[in-house]
Amino acid sequence: METEAPERGFPESEFAGRTCEAQALMAEQGLGGLLLTTEAEVRYFSGFQTQFWQSPTRPWFLFVPAEGKPIAIVPEIGATLMRKTWIEDIRTWSAPNPEDDGIGLLLDLLCPLASGEERIGVPKGPETSLRMPLGDWERLIAALPGLEIVDATGIVRTLRMVKSPAEIEKLAHVCAIGSATFERVPDFARNGRELAEVFRSFKREALALGADDVPYLVGSAGQGGYRDIISPPSRRPLRTGDILMLDTGSTWDGYYCDFDRNFAIGRSDDLSRRAYDILWRATEAGIETVRPGRTCRDIFNAMRSVIAEMDDGAGDVGRLGHGLGMQLTEWPSHAAFDDTAIEENMVLTLEPSLGYGDGLMMVHEENVVVRSGGAELLTVRAAPELPVI
Amino acid sequence: METEAPERGFPESEFAGRTCEAQALMAEQGLGGLLLTTEAEVRYFSGFQTQFWQSPTRPWFLFVPAEGKPIAIVPEIGATLMRKTWIEDIRTWSAPNPEDDGIGLLLDLLCPLASGEERIGVPKGPETSLRMPLGDWERLIAALPGLEIVDATGIVRTLRMVKSPAEIEKLAHVCAIGSATFERVPDFARNGRELAEVFRSFKREALALGADDVPYLVGSAGQGGYRDIISPPSRRPLRTGDILMLDTGSTWDGYYCDFDRNFAIGRSDDLSRRAYDILWRATEAGIETVRPGRTCRDIFNAMRSVIAEMDDGAGDVGRLGHGLGMQLTEWPSHAAFDDTAIEENMVLTLEPSLGYGDGLMMVHEENVVVRSGGAELLTVRAAPELPVI
Repeated sequence: METEAPERGFPESEFAGRTCEAQALMAEQGLGGLLLTTEAEVRYFSGFQTQFWQSPTRPWFLFVPAEGKPIAIVPEIGATLMRKTWIEDIRTWSAPNPEDDGIGLLLDLLCPLASGEERIGVPKGPETSLRMPLGDWERLIAALPGLEIVDATGIVRTLRMVKSPAEIEKLAHVCAIGSATFERVPDFARNGRELAEVFRSFKREALALGADDVPYLVGSAGQGGYRDIISPPSRRPLRTGDILMLDTGSTWDGYYCDFDRNFAIGRSDDLSRRAYDILWRATEAGIETVRPGRTCRDIFNAMRSVIAEMDDGAGDVGRLGHGLGMQLTEWPSHAAFDDTAIEENMVLTLEPSLGYGDGLMMVHEENVVVRSGGAELLTVRAAPELPVI
Repeated sequence: METEAPERGFPESEFAGRTCEAQALMAEQGLGGLLLTTEAEVRYFSGFQTQFWQSPTRPWFLFVPAEGKPIAIVPEIGATLMRKTWIEDIRTWSAPNPEDDGIGLLLDLLCPLASGEERIGVPKGPETSLRMPLGDWERLIAALPGLEIVDATGIVRTLRMVKSPAEIEKLAHVCAIGSATFERVPDFARNGRELAEVFRSFKREALALGADDVPYLVGSAGQGGYRDIISPPSRRPLRTGDILMLDTGSTWDGYYCDFDRNFAIGRSDDLSRRAYDILWRATEAGIETVRPGRTCRDIFNAMRSVIAEMDDGAGDVGRLGHGLGMQLTEWPSHAAFDDTAIEENMVLTLEPSLGYGDGLMMVHEENVVVRSGGAELLTVRAAPELPVI
């Protein structure tokens, strides 16, 4: 599968374009810089990709100035890898250093902006966080009283929501790997098999089919349906009459798929078949609604109206899909509160859910890219009827 | 392998004990509560375990009061799983909700403490971060002017650094899985094989041998040595004369191993053999130094003095090992700055590194648990001489 894969990484022009677009938005808001601390944002503007973020020990900083290339302020252990990116100005310290974990270097960078009473942006809004010790952040801003710090979530959100052709290639590739993996599920999700073993087989199969990693695999199985969608697997064996759901976020070159599939073990019951049918049609309604100019709320409402045939509460998972890219879930949200306008080249999940029976729930999910004429599926569409293994 | 595995999860007494210990430390500091936002801390006190943290969309909160069980303030999607833990007071909201992502519930909880001008703790120190939107945090503390918020890193650090017998069992188990996986490396890391394929085989093998996941696998290979230790794999085929290093953080029931192994492909060169010998002996010196009453600085110095035979800079990765547990890297650090006293039942990595030749580096790592008499290896000790595949 790897042989048919797109090229890894991005040409320098991709990062230059992203930076240029950010700087245009920054200029509109009078920002002298953008300070980023999280994996996805640092990678988005630099191309710096490593699993070393798994270690919480060291902070990493990328500063996008008003003009010119971003500046990296990173632990020395990351210098070699950062030098392979398009970034030229790389400032390092020997980390960890509890006395000064990059704060001195940040002060050197930001003091001139503080003296000029400039304004910089930091993502502070929904779905963001600040990946550095809060105490260091408090000390940093206390030492820069002239600096105005405003929320820059909008800038990062605007850029990251719309994918480039190269990003879409990667997303299409990892969705294809995910689809191929789900095709194999009947080979290993057999009656009597422990759910934990089914998970293990799924991950090994996804890797064999070309996934770099399977950072996210959740699922559940139970008689006539499941009650929880974010649990680790139990050692309970699959039984005739179970409904099995698997939901994967597999990755390729730093991009995620995020979709699920339902299966009945041995036989399916009427209620589960009905729930499945409604979710399948709700997804269809979502797919038909996706097109430039529509809003996330429109997509939510289209799915919601089908779900309402069986459930008025929409399963209470908070939304019926979201953006997809460098993270398992990204802005926007298909929810009543989100009136984000759908744009060409967004990559979205459509994820209707419903509650039924005695505390059971069902979820279903597909991944699409928005084209000028509407949604194009990146996943191989689920069967219209609940498959029986 | 799974059949020989320890029991998953913990008895309720484990969480009650942790909470009780935290509350004793909180009482010493006059804290009316401890507010936690990160995966490891929430799991440590609740047992709440899910890969759903991969999604950055929703914040999760756990509050440890001065007395009684912790209180969970979590998205509705997590309620079913949280109800399986020992936590009783579970307050949920339909998330995401950009208007109020749990802040109203936090205010309900914290307002009485603010009215009483009480003090609560939040981890703000090294190796911590605040996993919630910074803007929400700013709004929260602005609405609670009477509340004093102090750094509680010390409390969490003190507790988490020393492992319980059940935690040590899990860590021993995942280290055994890691060791068994490294034993298979000669089967798939052959001359001509692409490094990316070696990574893929390693992950599949670790899963087959019982790992739940392989969230961390980094490594490198190059003629006579490697230059970088945190990169994703290239598609360059292994060649005779390469030195290959693989470093894994595999997990079992939420606990990590973290160690690496070096291999020479086809033949080894004098310089690499010498570097390997020094690192092996540095590790040995570290292992011999580990015992209750010694400090991290002692361990650092013991390793450092051996490394100095070849390199004065200690490879500049910032430290020569660290704590290990629910995260790939935890407090403390084997570094000159860290005078943490070693205690029985700490689990530590010993991770000497050195630079040599023309920009080459080598790393080596073992995992140990501290017993009353000294270090007990959790990993199968690396061969004393650089193995040739």
